[in-house]
Amino acid sequence: MKFCSDCGSVIEKRIPDGDNLERDCCTKCDSIFYSNPRVIVGTVPIKNNKVLLCKRAIQPRYGLWTLPAGFLENGETIEEGAFRETKEETNTEVKMGNLYAIFNIPQINQVYMLHLAEVINEDYCSTSESLEVKFFSESEIPWDDLAFPFVPTTLKNYFIDSKKGEYPLSTQIIERPPRKSS
Amino acid sequence: MKFCSDCGSVIEKRIPDGDNLERDCCTKCDSIFYSNPRVIVGTVPIKNNKVLLCKRAIQPRYGLWTLPAGFLENGETIEEGAFRETKEETNTEVKMGNLYAIFNIPQINQVYMLHLAEVINEDYCSTSESLEVKFFSESEIPWDDLAFPFVPTTLKNYFIDSKKGEYPLSTQIIERPPRKSS
Repeated sequence: MKFCSDCGSVIEKRIPDGDNLERDCCTKCDSIFYSNPRVIVGTVPIKNNKVLLCKRAIQPRYGLWTLPAGFLENGETIEEGAFRETKEETNTEVKMGNLYAIFNIPQINQVYMLHLAEVINEDYCSTSESLEVKFFSESEIPWDDLAFPFVPTTLKNYFIDSKKGEYPLSTQIIERPPRKSS
Repeated sequence: MKFCSDCGSVIEKRIPDGDNLERDCCTKCDSIFYSNPRVIVGTVPIKNNKVLLCKRAIQPRYGLWTLPAGFLENGETIEEGAFRETKEETNTEVKMGNLYAIFNIPQINQVYMLHLAEVINEDYCSTSESLEVKFFSESEIPWDDLAFPFVPTTLKNYFIDSKKGEYPLSTQIIERPPRKSS
């Protein structure tokens, strides 16, 4: 952030009174700008113990398979956002289940929140965000072509839990590998 | 948002290519600015079936009692943020327990995530954020002087659950009352 979005003046980083972290502060008006983590909401869409995955039609990770998920928008609840993202990426309207997985990814300021969901219609199909939308049983999962680290972790957990018939909430931290310096 | 924080030019609201919501877009450079819900993290700090509450030393709701909670910061996990906020508001370092309550407050773009926590030290005390920090049993809770709607809801749930000895995660939506027009 270089310029104040309220008045257009130059921004400086400093610790405001009563705070203990550096913030983006306007050098002219009194505006302070906070940057906070964002929430990614999504689902594990299930039918007959198969999981509905999406082949990404957008960057990053174009062409790799993922669970439907995306940024929570203003004005939404977590479940509404998970429902919307699933519809946008798979075209189908799922029946929302319990919160199933939370992933903290502190290096990139993200919190993932995934709900179990039941696929109740046959209208899933490719969308502007997904090249292909397809059910996979455990043995069919394309383990080498999954888009993000949360996807294999969630799928492995799901298939373990499905054998027990219990789906407790799990909370995990994903460490983002440091960038290669060379 | 009136000015681009990257180049200082005027902002216009429009739907970017490939999106379906209006965003703040720069009229000169290609910057797009997204606004998303923020996460508030906190705890229900417990010892001997009493809850540690904080009398707010800051606005809003100065002088009313609350559970320790505040905005999740960049670089933190949910549990780290809940631990930090509890320390900042009560001075004590709690032993973190399970995620216990999620509140969606879509009208103000907030998601609350509260963990149960065990108070293990006797060093809780007033802080720059709390006029007073004190344990309350169920019969002692100052029900008429609680700061925010999530506080009585969480406390009522807690005392019901404590009688059963089971503390399942609850997810709720808090509707913010519309502003009075007069």
